[in-house]
Amino acid sequence: MANDGANQPLLVGQSDHIHQSNQKAAPKRRYRRCKSAPLANFVPVEVDRTGLVPSSKSIFELHPSFKKVVMYLVVYLGVGAVCFYLVGRQISGNKTNGILDSVYFCIVTMTTVGYGDLVPNSVATKLLACAFVFSGMAVVGLILSEAADYLVEKQEILLVKALHIRQKVGPGEILKEIEAYRVKYKCLTVFGFLLVLILVGTIFLATVEKLDLIDAFYCVCCIITTLGYGDRSFSTEAGRIFAIFWILTSTLCLAQFFLYVAELNIESRQRALVKWVLTRRITSVDLEAADLDDDGVVGAAEFIIYKLKEMGKINEEDILLVMEEFDTLDVDQSGTLSASDITLAQSS
Amino acid sequence: MANDGANQPLLVGQSDHIHQSNQKAAPKRRYRRCKSAPLANFVPVEVDRTGLVPSSKSIFELHPSFKKVVMYLVVYLGVGAVCFYLVGRQISGNKTNGILDSVYFCIVTMTTVGYGDLVPNSVATKLLACAFVFSGMAVVGLILSEAADYLVEKQEILLVKALHIRQKVGPGEILKEIEAYRVKYKCLTVFGFLLVLILVGTIFLATVEKLDLIDAFYCVCCIITTLGYGDRSFSTEAGRIFAIFWILTSTLCLAQFFLYVAELNIESRQRALVKWVLTRRITSVDLEAADLDDDGVVGAAEFIIYKLKEMGKINEEDILLVMEEFDTLDVDQSGTLSASDITLAQSS
Repeated sequence: MANDGANQPLLVGQSDHIHQSNQKAAPKRRYRRCKSAPLANFVPVEVDRTGLVPSSKSIFELHPSFKKVVMYLVVYLGVGAVCFYLVGRQISGNKTNGILDSVYFCIVTMTTVGYGDLVPNSVATKLLACAFVFSGMAVVGLILSEAADYLVEKQEILLVKALHIRQKVGPGEILKEIEAYRVKYKCLTVFGFLLVLILVGTIFLATVEKLDLIDAFYCVCCIITTLGYGDRSFSTEAGRIFAIFWILTSTLCLAQFFLYVAELNIESRQRALVKWVLTRRITSVDLEAADLDDDGVVGAAEFIIYKLKEMGKINEEDILLVMEEFDTLDVDQSGTLSASDITLAQSS
Repeated sequence: MANDGANQPLLVGQSDHIHQSNQKAAPKRRYRRCKSAPLANFVPVEVDRTGLVPSSKSIFELHPSFKKVVMYLVVYLGVGAVCFYLVGRQISGNKTNGILDSVYFCIVTMTTVGYGDLVPNSVATKLLACAFVFSGMAVVGLILSEAADYLVEKQEILLVKALHIRQKVGPGEILKEIEAYRVKYKCLTVFGFLLVLILVGTIFLATVEKLDLIDAFYCVCCIITTLGYGDRSFSTEAGRIFAIFWILTSTLCLAQFFLYVAELNIESRQRALVKWVLTRRITSVDLEAADLDDDGVVGAAEFIIYKLKEMGKINEEDILLVMEEFDTLDVDQSGTLSASDITLAQSS
């Protein structure tokens, strides 16, 4: 959202696109000519420096928030592994290798799977586990909010390419297709991952941990949902090495899938509202309400603000905030901003 | 968001408020007089019928989506209780009362606590548990997205009242205070609830289930985070009746708390962006870009759209969609909408 807004000035540099779409849909549009080509590359540099708006999205470049997430995860697992290794004797259950078990215990705790095959049995370890589960949930939340979406977005491009492998389409068309059904493709991508992870997990448990196929599937479901009843689990050394990676990715994958389904749901509601707002009949009551500068007619910009407010995209508060700045800038009090206002405002 | 937009026509009925705030901040605003008092109660009736936008928010009235959530929850628990009661013999573990155990098992499964004190031990019950954990997660997601926020909002008013019990403030001022720090107060409300639930749970486990205090607290942490190692649990009949209600509320409460923290985080970022957009210097390049109708000057509405786009609140696509409708409505092609356009558009 923020990228779209801050990286491109209003209706500039995209004017060609507007004119193209007009040619079939609304041939009678008269204004907004493509007058400002040199502005097309205008990017507010300050925003990029704050890290709020990523400036470039190369496929092989690491996102700054992604690096942060990896760092947090490494620190969390490092501290956790050392802590639980040191109190290893106060953890009872099915043990394999000391350091491996403590990393495994960390992962099982942070994802809230909580199998119960390793259980703290002293006051200190119990309180340590409490601290680790809360901070672990925060780390998982951070991964979901900062990095997961970014990783999915990258995979998404591969998915769309795969879906169109028979037709020859350029990268521009793929990007356009992704843009139009962004959330839907993300949902599909994560769902595909989830199926692969379920399959891999089931096969692994059936072959390495020697569970029968139904038990393996049941165990997989118990893990990815973070249910973790604890009646079947990873008990071999190889199993726990696999579990460390597999539990983290699969639980995150399911959580992200639910997040995308929720997003899809919100989007479809929003679309219904937009459709209603755009097809509803305009009355003179609406015209009067939309007439911001009180000149008796409603200009294009006034109409856009009125409709976007009806859609719930902007609210009164947003408008008032910007209006305050407008009044400050409009030094000659003409009701419009011109080059002379800017000069006056900056000299005063 | 949607409520704000659709229930109040643009800058109408709030004009008094604008004029008040102008008197000290920007006394030179000249337009937008309070001309349309009868419009203040204008509410698009059709939107209310679709259920998208709630029209009234009385404290004692039940929200439609809240009713839906309660219905889903009752159906889920009802079906779950009957299913697991019927296959009761294929569930092994620490049992008390048949129907009570099956409801308890349902709650432990849907919240993904997964204690392991009751464990399915046949192929059919294992697959049933898999089905119930996925559908249960969907129900929990529905509760979080539809009802939890609504319940917190109601409690929030009580919190703000309690915080201001010494100063005498009217309900209008309380609502204004809530509006300004909405997410922060929600966070605090949920956090308060969570502390109460942790306290109640710890005391209950210590007295009824006879755990020592550290064990009780550890057990409470295991439950609310849905960790559920399963080494300590509710084993008495009274404990399980309590658990049914307590597990559901406390896990939801923690999840909602994390959601609010995330929202708070997003809001503070958004505020930083808004601040940057509003304090940044306007150049003639910006003016040219903001000039939507290409008349050489930037009107108030054009300026608002440009700034809101920079803030990332609206994007190119939104603007183009509304522009298309504007062009259709502007029958006389004057570049503005007037009463005659409306009459012409509706007769054609």
